[in-house]
Amino acid sequence: MIKLAIDAMGGDNAPQSVVEGVNKALQEFEDLEIHLFGDTEAIKTYLKDNDRVKITETTEIITGEDEPVKAIRSKKDSSMVVAARSVREGKTDVLLSAGNTGALLSAGLLIVGRIKGIDRPGLMPIIPTVNPDSPQFILMDAGANADSKAIQLHQHAILANYYAQNVLGIQKPRIGLLNNGTEEGKGDDLRKEAFDLLNNDPSIHFIGNVEAKELLTGSLDIAITDGFTGNAILKTLEGTAKNIFKVLKDSLMNSGVKTKLGALLVKSSLKSMAEKFDDTKQGGAVLLGVKHPVIKAHGSSDSEAIYNAIRQARQIVDSKAVEKMKEYFNQD
Amino acid sequence: MIKLAIDAMGGDNAPQSVVEGVNKALQEFEDLEIHLFGDTEAIKTYLKDNDRVKITETTEIITGEDEPVKAIRSKKDSSMVVAARSVREGKTDVLLSAGNTGALLSAGLLIVGRIKGIDRPGLMPIIPTVNPDSPQFILMDAGANADSKAIQLHQHAILANYYAQNVLGIQKPRIGLLNNGTEEGKGDDLRKEAFDLLNNDPSIHFIGNVEAKELLTGSLDIAITDGFTGNAILKTLEGTAKNIFKVLKDSLMNSGVKTKLGALLVKSSLKSMAEKFDDTKQGGAVLLGVKHPVIKAHGSSDSEAIYNAIRQARQIVDSKAVEKMKEYFNQD
Repeated sequence: MIKLAIDAMGGDNAPQSVVEGVNKALQEFEDLEIHLFGDTEAIKTYLKDNDRVKITETTEIITGEDEPVKAIRSKKDSSMVVAARSVREGKTDVLLSAGNTGALLSAGLLIVGRIKGIDRPGLMPIIPTVNPDSPQFILMDAGANADSKAIQLHQHAILANYYAQNVLGIQKPRIGLLNNGTEEGKGDDLRKEAFDLLNNDPSIHFIGNVEAKELLTGSLDIAITDGFTGNAILKTLEGTAKNIFKVLKDSLMNSGVKTKLGALLVKSSLKSMAEKFDDTKQGGAVLLGVKHPVIKAHGSSDSEAIYNAIRQARQIVDSKAVEKMKEYFNQD
Repeated sequence: MIKLAIDAMGGDNAPQSVVEGVNKALQEFEDLEIHLFGDTEAIKTYLKDNDRVKITETTEIITGEDEPVKAIRSKKDSSMVVAARSVREGKTDVLLSAGNTGALLSAGLLIVGRIKGIDRPGLMPIIPTVNPDSPQFILMDAGANADSKAIQLHQHAILANYYAQNVLGIQKPRIGLLNNGTEEGKGDDLRKEAFDLLNNDPSIHFIGNVEAKELLTGSLDIAITDGFTGNAILKTLEGTAKNIFKVLKDSLMNSGVKTKLGALLVKSSLKSMAEKFDDTKQGGAVLLGVKHPVIKAHGSSDSEAIYNAIRQARQIVDSKAVEKMKEYFNQD
């Protein structure tokens, strides 16, 4: 049995969409056991009877407004903290939450705990591309750290490489260093130092510097960057896609009969395009560098997005990717 | 007369699209005198006779492959270098090129020269938003510098503020600091220090930290960031928009008759949306912090984009924005 600890109270639509996602996952996967943490009564409103689900009552909730580290330290009986403790104590294998991102990163660091040999865990979203032959890429780090050192970027590359190989099934993941030009020697001191570390590591397939405009084309599997830039890139991607779709919708809807008729005819085509950019299909962002997998689902997750994140959590545990990371870094 | 120095040989479609843009601008604006630098014969193939245009023959061209600083120092008779010298010597008022970005930045720094009191000039593209009430924002710095200090970010805010007030006509430009969260105290040391400098400057309207996902919504006029992150954001914006439009086009074209008919009906609506995101309409990116305006047009500029950049160059000279910047920083 693969045992998931799920923060039932995290996210904009909790606990309803969390529990509905759980219902679907339990039906789909017979090897899953799910431990829900939160308000028992609210959870039971939506939960379908199943002997593979357990509820642990918690009395506090960490909200989006809470200051992350403080919340983790003071809200000892929050659904997120108690779920994280269950993972640390080995009662469950993986932690999943759609709640406060900063707080979940802190829970990963302070409760689940860093892998020995890792300086700083990194947050790794899996982002869709427009290329069917290479349908996603990993962005590492997307914001777990505001300040980064070259050695940390190198460690992140190794962690992401294990993930891509074992969870995504990519034999030889193409790893690029996000930079302000593709030529060797580009960028600031951090990039130059990281380039050398990545380039001299025979255990990974480093393809050199890449520019942000390449990310969606499928020309690489893993983009390595400091957390500050990664955060800006992720938010620019999300903001641009969202605003373009909004303008598209507005300009189709606020026009004449001819265009409206046309919009009706292209509807399914537009929908399939929007789905291509729907990153909740890819599951959540994974915090790597901690002793057990920690997955952050979108705050706005619906039950389908939660289901996808559970599927991903199951796959990560099944692949033993985190055990392999531990083995690698513990030898040093 | 406003005198423009234009590198006729810079850009993917030079000299044809450059010269055709010049033809249009000379027709439109009677107060323009244009000095073209490049291969006289090639220029004359496209140039319409006009007594307000002068050609200076140059024998070298800086290409996209040239190493910027080296090219500026060694290709003394290149169209870009000779054009830049004409601006430095006061023969012309503003420098415009669609050539090698790095080389143009170096020409600005090494030939046109820094404004006294400015540490590092910044490159400032003007980017369209989806909001008709606030149709563009300025990104500063978009990549002139790979390493930045807080004092430089503060100087960039002041420079961009003069531009927005005098050239774009925005009385009280809203200036945001690009950060990984909106709360005060967010980000790395650079951001924290820059926040304090911006927040304590009564001469600008600082609205606090902003996230990259807000950029296209029109909620700010100027986004201040270090050049490394700015470069990544600009390229992510361009890459995302380009790839979404590509997928949209493909998914409409590779489908059944019904969808194709629909695509025909929504065509003008899609075209008007694509035009909204066509940043060549906004002119080129401006290098601010140098003694005379330097404008970088897109490498792929067509004659329309060159025309728009000339229009912008004329407006910058006319507004005396750079004189005001010099006055401000020379007092210190």
